[in-house]
Amino acid sequence: MVYQQKNMTRSEYEEFLKVTAGEIKAELVLKNATYLDVFTNQFKQGDIAISHGSFAGIGKYKGEKEIDMNGKTIVPGFIDAHIHIESTTVTPEIFAKEALKHGTTAILTDPHEIANVMGVDGVKYMLEATEGLPMDIFFMIPSCVPSCEFDESGAEILARDMEQFFDDKRVYGIAELMDVNGVATRRTDVIEKTFSAIQNDMLIDGHAPMISGPQLMSYVAAGVLSDHECSTMDEAIEKLGVGLWIMIREGTAGQNLEALIDLCKEPYCSRSMFCTDDRHITDIMKEGHIDNIIRKAIRLGAEPAEAYKMASYTAGCYFGLRDRGAISPGFLADFVVVNDVNSVEIEKVFKAGVELTDEYLEANCKAKLSDELKDKAHHTMNMPVVSPEMLKSKGKLPVLGLVDGQLYTTREGLASKIDLSADILKAAVFERHKNTGHIGMGYITGYGLKQGAIATSVAHDAHNIIAIGTSEEAMANAVNAIREMGGGMLVYDGQNVIASYALPVAGLMSEEDAMTAKQKLEEVHEAAYSLGVNKGIDPFMTLSFTALPVIPELRITTHGVVDVPAWTLYH
Amino acid sequence: MVYQQKNMTRSEYEEFLKVTAGEIKAELVLKNATYLDVFTNQFKQGDIAISHGSFAGIGKYKGEKEIDMNGKTIVPGFIDAHIHIESTTVTPEIFAKEALKHGTTAILTDPHEIANVMGVDGVKYMLEATEGLPMDIFFMIPSCVPSCEFDESGAEILARDMEQFFDDKRVYGIAELMDVNGVATRRTDVIEKTFSAIQNDMLIDGHAPMISGPQLMSYVAAGVLSDHECSTMDEAIEKLGVGLWIMIREGTAGQNLEALIDLCKEPYCSRSMFCTDDRHITDIMKEGHIDNIIRKAIRLGAEPAEAYKMASYTAGCYFGLRDRGAISPGFLADFVVVNDVNSVEIEKVFKAGVELTDEYLEANCKAKLSDELKDKAHHTMNMPVVSPEMLKSKGKLPVLGLVDGQLYTTREGLASKIDLSADILKAAVFERHKNTGHIGMGYITGYGLKQGAIATSVAHDAHNIIAIGTSEEAMANAVNAIREMGGGMLVYDGQNVIASYALPVAGLMSEEDAMTAKQKLEEVHEAAYSLGVNKGIDPFMTLSFTALPVIPELRITTHGVVDVPAWTLYH
Repeated sequence: MVYQQKNMTRSEYEEFLKVTAGEIKAELVLKNATYLDVFTNQFKQGDIAISHGSFAGIGKYKGEKEIDMNGKTIVPGFIDAHIHIESTTVTPEIFAKEALKHGTTAILTDPHEIANVMGVDGVKYMLEATEGLPMDIFFMIPSCVPSCEFDESGAEILARDMEQFFDDKRVYGIAELMDVNGVATRRTDVIEKTFSAIQNDMLIDGHAPMISGPQLMSYVAAGVLSDHECSTMDEAIEKLGVGLWIMIREGTAGQNLEALIDLCKEPYCSRSMFCTDDRHITDIMKEGHIDNIIRKAIRLGAEPAEAYKMASYTAGCYFGLRDRGAISPGFLADFVVVNDVNSVEIEKVFKAGVELTDEYLEANCKAKLSDELKDKAHHTMNMPVVSPEMLKSKGKLPVLGLVDGQLYTTREGLASKIDLSADILKAAVFERHKNTGHIGMGYITGYGLKQGAIATSVAHDAHNIIAIGTSEEAMANAVNAIREMGGGMLVYDGQNVIASYALPVAGLMSEEDAMTAKQKLEEVHEAAYSLGVNKGIDPFMTLSFTALPVIPELRITTHGVVDVPAWTLYH
Repeated sequence: MVYQQKNMTRSEYEEFLKVTAGEIKAELVLKNATYLDVFTNQFKQGDIAISHGSFAGIGKYKGEKEIDMNGKTIVPGFIDAHIHIESTTVTPEIFAKEALKHGTTAILTDPHEIANVMGVDGVKYMLEATEGLPMDIFFMIPSCVPSCEFDESGAEILARDMEQFFDDKRVYGIAELMDVNGVATRRTDVIEKTFSAIQNDMLIDGHAPMISGPQLMSYVAAGVLSDHECSTMDEAIEKLGVGLWIMIREGTAGQNLEALIDLCKEPYCSRSMFCTDDRHITDIMKEGHIDNIIRKAIRLGAEPAEAYKMASYTAGCYFGLRDRGAISPGFLADFVVVNDVNSVEIEKVFKAGVELTDEYLEANCKAKLSDELKDKAHHTMNMPVVSPEMLKSKGKLPVLGLVDGQLYTTREGLASKIDLSADILKAAVFERHKNTGHIGMGYITGYGLKQGAIATSVAHDAHNIIAIGTSEEAMANAVNAIREMGGGMLVYDGQNVIASYALPVAGLMSEEDAMTAKQKLEEVHEAAYSLGVNKGIDPFMTLSFTALPVIPELRITTHGVVDVPAWTLYH
């Protein structure tokens, strides 16, 4: 949208102009405010008048309600440019409530996880579940379900399935086009999607870790406009230079800000923004959401004005949200009051001029869902009981190396059995959507588990069940327990399930309130670490990505180990 | 448009991707090129492949046709963000031919001049006359016809008249909203236009010289997004800071680049661009168009990469033209080959991958116009013969002071008669659209004419006839000669018309070829200067603006002298 004033009737518009002219009182005036002017990168002073959900003027104003800011600073509400709400492990209304407290007033979400389980119904579920929440939740329609031909998901989304969502006013484009190989080879199903997006003026978000040179050129020519997978400055500058907007990701497992901190200055910052991609609710509650990225960026040397601007205005520029990300007449009055600019200590958050008190959030963060979709989302475990025999080794299999704080894996040779002294664990992925009984296996090093097994029904992107263990018996028991729960995460010490976190919604999301979800999630994490898991990685988030065959080098799917650069299954 | 690829069929799109991948030859490859990467502000090297009118890739490519660039530099085609084609004094096809040679591949034009003469038919005339030209000519619909209540134009354009054009794919918004007072007082006709533009997602360009503080705030709140009337950095920074995009104007009379050169760096340059507004064809042919502004900016200290970027990519950002202004796959292949980056010495210009040779321009710069509009445009002189008696003084009248290189005037007291020794000349504006016989008078100093009179049917914005003279007799003779010509500019030495330039199209545009038009325009200028006109001003362009009652301080209209800040007619 170009103008916030488009939401006003003619008489409201005239009233709005009277407020600006000081002829009538504003609904709300923030007196003695310091505020960020994102257009000249200055912190300025003035009374800020708000009317009809928009900024109406800055200067000297009187309001029906006035709040003395005592010099505290107002910055535009934060935008997460790319997030899978499902990866927080909580439902949208729970996520929104927490993220709003951290200043995030708008997100671009990709319901890719639930779409891999439920197909277009998953997208519909998320659209319904986010309608009317006091956060602007915009959608990018999942473009790669399944992520690629090696991934065995619950449903397939074709171009024609995506198109049904293009007229929705909350849909801005198609989400991370991760099938880089499908683009490079111009596979029909992929090209149908990009061509359709282009014809419909839908933005195409990218996902292309480490691609470069001619392959990158092809990817951009296909219509991709952004990327959130850069892990080095060289990679980011090459991608920027061919026209991609860069989303700097700082999630639970994938954390790229430190490596990319130099993007937070000109000439790079005007096409760079922030996203979390996949971030557990615990991390949002403890460290924050986009506020955490701003804080960290400033600590790493970014100019505060630039960091706040990237987190709001610049993301708005990319998505064509011309009416947000600035404190200026005609912009949406989404803003954050910070006690201290550098530490991003948040005092209050306002959405469209309304203060988001705890009571307000409690009353307004409620999903309205149809019974049909609700019911469907609660029945997504369709798989047989697993026996240890099914997991016995079949000769040598590749070993995936985990890297602290990264999503990519390394090649660590072959193994034929579990070897705890060398930290070689067995991992397996179990198809859970169509009762095929498919199980793919491989080995992982760098995980550190010393006892029992860990399993989760969150396993990118198909969200089959992944288990990692110190024995086949432990793995089988862990997987069967997940199946019984209807989805979730758990830690099995070889005798008992010592911690579990149920995720009954599509096997991805909890229905608990945020505090309970956080507690359960912390319990499974603590239990995992207590059994030896390496503290440099997240026991669940990192594990869940070892199943995703679109990130180099090696991945494990229901069909076995995928060599991503070679684009082949290991035989 | 987001994607150039939207112009392609599915099979063309696949072919395009094959070109990028190097699997088939490109239509055109620029070998060994240096090119500007506007995303990282770097000049880089590579072969540039072009296919289907778009950049397809940069790297190593083979083409059906290959041009060795020998290291010469490719920059994106230039965009003029705000221009009245009529002010060049030539028709659109003649203008396009000349401006294309100077690297301007797209313009946003405001047919405000012809609309003041012919109303909506004037807008239709310009839409027809520009259809199919090898320059992208986008439109902003005139928002202030007449400019304000003091201006007596040939027609009035209301909100509903403007709306008929909003669905045209070449229309991007409404043009310079110059009735600042009408906005501030929320006059119904003005508010109807801004509200309609907002509802239709039309951009609203501004025109607000010297406004500041609360008045500026009201102007922005109404929905105005840009301004091209800044004459100082303080003014520009204040306007940027409330969210206006700044167009730095460098026309024939209004020249602001030198004062605003510091806008050509961050954080200002990412919301600043260039425009000419009103520029005679002679100046375009002699000094250049947007290329002249880039050249001058670099000479004044701008980083070349920034100057070229403002002239292309940044203007594209403002207008939402996401597919132009960069040399990158999926961007429109409009580009300029320069021999020397700093001096902007242009060797070749390409539009959508096609080289604009003289032959090509000759064959393709042809307007297709309906007979009805053509005929109407050729009959716009509807006024009585003027006698010297009609111009006799009626007591004291204000004296307008002209300022070299500026459009604003100063207050220089009152006068009751012409006084050549004090450089006080009489000026009068004659209504020419509706045969009302209205004549408004005043005095001007700073013009310098020593003999005879000068008259023109180009007189902003109503384009009545303005004459300035050393006697009432000379003025009457000059005006009558213009009437006889059917519109134009002329210089009368007291005995004879010593130079004249006919403008038969709406009294605004010549039908001559560019060389003849240039020659005639030079002749009237030389003749004017030979009679003493001050070399610091343009005898016609500056004079034509003294009739425009929306620029401070004083103006002369058919009703008499207008005091612009006081917003009253002098009595």
